[in-house]
Amino acid sequence: MKKQYVIGLDYGSDSARALIVDANTGEEMASSVKYYPRWMEGKYCVPAQNQYRQHPKDYLEVMEGTITEALSKCDASVAENVVGISFDTTGSTPALTDGNGTPLAMLPEFEENPNAMFILWKDHMAVKEADEINELARKWDVDFTKYEGGIYSSEWVWAKALHVLRKDDAVKAATKSWIEYCDWLPAVLTGKTAINEVKRSRCAAGHKALWHPDWKGLPPEEFLVELGPELKGLRENLFEETYTSDEAFGNLTAEWAEKLGLSTDVVVGVSAFDAHMGAVGAEIEANTFVRIMGTSTCDIMVSPETELGDKLIPGICGQVDGSVIPGMVGLEAGQSAFGDVYAWFKRVLEWPLQFVSSEEEKKAIMDKIIPALADEAAQIPMEESTILATDWFNGRRTPDADQNVKGTITGLNLGSTAPRIFRALVEATAYGSKAIVDRFLDNGVKVDQVVAIGGVAKKSDFVMQTLADVLGMPIKVARSEQSVALGAAMFAAVASGAHATIADAQKAMGQGFEKEYNPIAANVEAYKALYEKYIKLGKLTEAGI
Amino acid sequence: MKKQYVIGLDYGSDSARALIVDANTGEEMASSVKYYPRWMEGKYCVPAQNQYRQHPKDYLEVMEGTITEALSKCDASVAENVVGISFDTTGSTPALTDGNGTPLAMLPEFEENPNAMFILWKDHMAVKEADEINELARKWDVDFTKYEGGIYSSEWVWAKALHVLRKDDAVKAATKSWIEYCDWLPAVLTGKTAINEVKRSRCAAGHKALWHPDWKGLPPEEFLVELGPELKGLRENLFEETYTSDEAFGNLTAEWAEKLGLSTDVVVGVSAFDAHMGAVGAEIEANTFVRIMGTSTCDIMVSPETELGDKLIPGICGQVDGSVIPGMVGLEAGQSAFGDVYAWFKRVLEWPLQFVSSEEEKKAIMDKIIPALADEAAQIPMEESTILATDWFNGRRTPDADQNVKGTITGLNLGSTAPRIFRALVEATAYGSKAIVDRFLDNGVKVDQVVAIGGVAKKSDFVMQTLADVLGMPIKVARSEQSVALGAAMFAAVASGAHATIADAQKAMGQGFEKEYNPIAANVEAYKALYEKYIKLGKLTEAGI
Repeated sequence: MKKQYVIGLDYGSDSARALIVDANTGEEMASSVKYYPRWMEGKYCVPAQNQYRQHPKDYLEVMEGTITEALSKCDASVAENVVGISFDTTGSTPALTDGNGTPLAMLPEFEENPNAMFILWKDHMAVKEADEINELARKWDVDFTKYEGGIYSSEWVWAKALHVLRKDDAVKAATKSWIEYCDWLPAVLTGKTAINEVKRSRCAAGHKALWHPDWKGLPPEEFLVELGPELKGLRENLFEETYTSDEAFGNLTAEWAEKLGLSTDVVVGVSAFDAHMGAVGAEIEANTFVRIMGTSTCDIMVSPETELGDKLIPGICGQVDGSVIPGMVGLEAGQSAFGDVYAWFKRVLEWPLQFVSSEEEKKAIMDKIIPALADEAAQIPMEESTILATDWFNGRRTPDADQNVKGTITGLNLGSTAPRIFRALVEATAYGSKAIVDRFLDNGVKVDQVVAIGGVAKKSDFVMQTLADVLGMPIKVARSEQSVALGAAMFAAVASGAHATIADAQKAMGQGFEKEYNPIAANVEAYKALYEKYIKLGKLTEAGI
Repeated sequence: MKKQYVIGLDYGSDSARALIVDANTGEEMASSVKYYPRWMEGKYCVPAQNQYRQHPKDYLEVMEGTITEALSKCDASVAENVVGISFDTTGSTPALTDGNGTPLAMLPEFEENPNAMFILWKDHMAVKEADEINELARKWDVDFTKYEGGIYSSEWVWAKALHVLRKDDAVKAATKSWIEYCDWLPAVLTGKTAINEVKRSRCAAGHKALWHPDWKGLPPEEFLVELGPELKGLRENLFEETYTSDEAFGNLTAEWAEKLGLSTDVVVGVSAFDAHMGAVGAEIEANTFVRIMGTSTCDIMVSPETELGDKLIPGICGQVDGSVIPGMVGLEAGQSAFGDVYAWFKRVLEWPLQFVSSEEEKKAIMDKIIPALADEAAQIPMEESTILATDWFNGRRTPDADQNVKGTITGLNLGSTAPRIFRALVEATAYGSKAIVDRFLDNGVKVDQVVAIGGVAKKSDFVMQTLADVLGMPIKVARSEQSVALGAAMFAAVASGAHATIADAQKAMGQGFEKEYNPIAANVEAYKALYEKYIKLGKLTEAGI
């Protein structure tokens, strides 16, 4: 059998990772990570105002480095046999472009203007604009948000575009279109950057840009202009068609082929968001709930079209036919803070360590905090779980997005120790997970199994066991350390023809699972009652504590 | 003018303090503190079950030591000119007695039986019995709890007596009566221990034993027997009369006079609870709200009989004519946890310090935590007070006693630092204070000024300033380091005839105030809105989070 290699390029929030995989066996040949240089200097960001921007040059500058470094770790024959490359990126992370499809910050006059750059997913400046979109959508004869859970978010492209266009006249004058990060990277590598040549990702368009076949693409011009006259004329420079990520975007240009030491025969696939490709890397199949668990979670489900039918799942981040696997409806949800909740408590507990004289000892203690808390929390008998918390320390992404809800801890008394509070926080994040799973179940989406990837899934037995107990479901943890890039590689294998379908690619390249957490029956029962209290606490919190 | 000295004996939870004061000038001549020996060994207590018992011998054994040690620090002429002694004690801290008025634990057969000992105020084993008293009181034609705020507490004598009598048959068989700690000590010193000779404290009887002139003393036998047949026959061995603490209980017996190196001319006054005498020591007068601020608070008001009239103040710890100053109605309230809330947060933050290698450094860091938190919390701009907490970490004493309510912290996000949480906790304890003051104001009790004594009042500018801002009232801090014992000394001066009235004794012996915290107008306004949120959070918490 002829050797065929594919490259998965995973563009995260801080860095890009290239992973070279044997398309026949799934063997991970080599990988390389490069950090975005301007971003790492903190440029163009104002955290206090929730402004997070990334310069397009950051993305391009790491591209060559990661790929060539990964290739350099392999035998020379590997480069000769690379057949495909696919990207996954964060999102919605859009930039405004000129009439040529060039992100404005690539033009000399906008080189240092944050409003001309990519607006990172976690940039929350467009809260007001998101509210306006929701308000107008409620009034319009068609609810264009209905396939995006019924609530448009400030993290998504239309809110961001409107916000920046209102704020910056110079940018507004130069803007003719916008592009998602995940669409721009393959466009650059294939030279198909012209507006009418870009193959827009179904995933990005369907989950974030209100694109749907029901209304033949994006919402109509009248809707957009009613939203804000600033949006006038953009739509004609955008798109009607979208593409699933099993399709080819194009071939490497001669220039990029030379830079990367690859052939112009290499196919570049249509992109998608990181969590969606990560779910494929973790071998998602129908009715599998895949969780990418880190500082926050992104949760992905696929449901056969025939099974989902006309059902609309309210309060999630959308349901898009083909956004994960062609022929199935991809469903996205997630928690705004997961590991970040534990990291918050760790920071609170670290406060007195400022008085520790030895920097070395201080650092060593900091590293011990979470593992030691987890060890102690795990020893607390189930019936002593009397502290109750919400997990909304960074607002709530799903179910029912709300950036204004906050974290609450109740049931505290003079005997509430740090490990007991930590246990309550872990339980809270698990309850937040159950609220998402229940939203699916309550709307007729079957959940047969749970698969977890990401840092938290790999690191904490206590968190994962608690999650299994609260969900009342076994959870499998994917073996690969880089499931997201592996998913991108699987897509590259299909786009380039090395495999016929995603299922084939998963079967050949999947790396299986390294462990499974099984729910403990007694805890499952006990957590049912506690979960009801969590729901009640949530309602009280929303009622305006 | 002839020199006259008086001794205030302050019997606290852990120790007894003797303070010798010049009755003419208020000069504090000397003092001495002795800890209860069995108590300090942790004997007879089961904290996990809220059982806290004190052996009567503990009280007697420290009596001679404190008084003689304090006297030994003075010129010999002082002892010759001591004219009076008065006690204050914790309460309700009752013990069951035999027919001679002897606490059962003083008898050889009950010497090691905790049920035969004094049941300390903070012993909470009688929650069920308190509920039963409240239930029966609601049904009876007269509500015997109406002068005790309408809610009987598990901390009070009838609930405790009933609990122990039900639990311990041997004790039940030997029991003929009960006595409060504050009544037993002067009885012993004067030899008037026989049941019909004890001059019962108006303060203890009125605030804790359902005594009131409206129903000619204690509740009728039918009520008590309906509550529990175990109480049958006790009432006839108790009392109808009570005495205010300006009255003499009797004179020192020859035996005690010799032990203490004093004359049998020395008058021993009728006792009262510590907070009530402390309020006198802090120069309480009509419409002054005096707070004894430590781990918890005890709050005392006096209101002229003419002003209060028939008004009943619901949800406080009672209103008793003469319980503080004869001729005025004493009103008692308090918070179950005050400094204890800060101490709880300190313990939480100390958790990682277990990993600090040097015991000495660890201890030094522990000592820094609260002052450093207060310094940082004080720097946080008022408009950033967005975390909100309840102060019910040890249940709620007033307004509206409820041992089941818990501490809640809400408004948390990933930027909620330890000093921000500490600030919220300090504000919560201040809101709890305002809820008490408002209960008085809402029921027509004027509050003209606030005076604070106790450890927290002396130690924390930040806490006291926040309290002044939340209450919107200036707070004066009493100068004396031992206001409670000083108050007892003032009562000794009146009981022994050195002064005619409490007001005279206060004028001659009062030590004034060392500082005053004035509310900052802008903060007062801002806290009005936040306090409304605290009330709302409280209601939501009570609604069953």
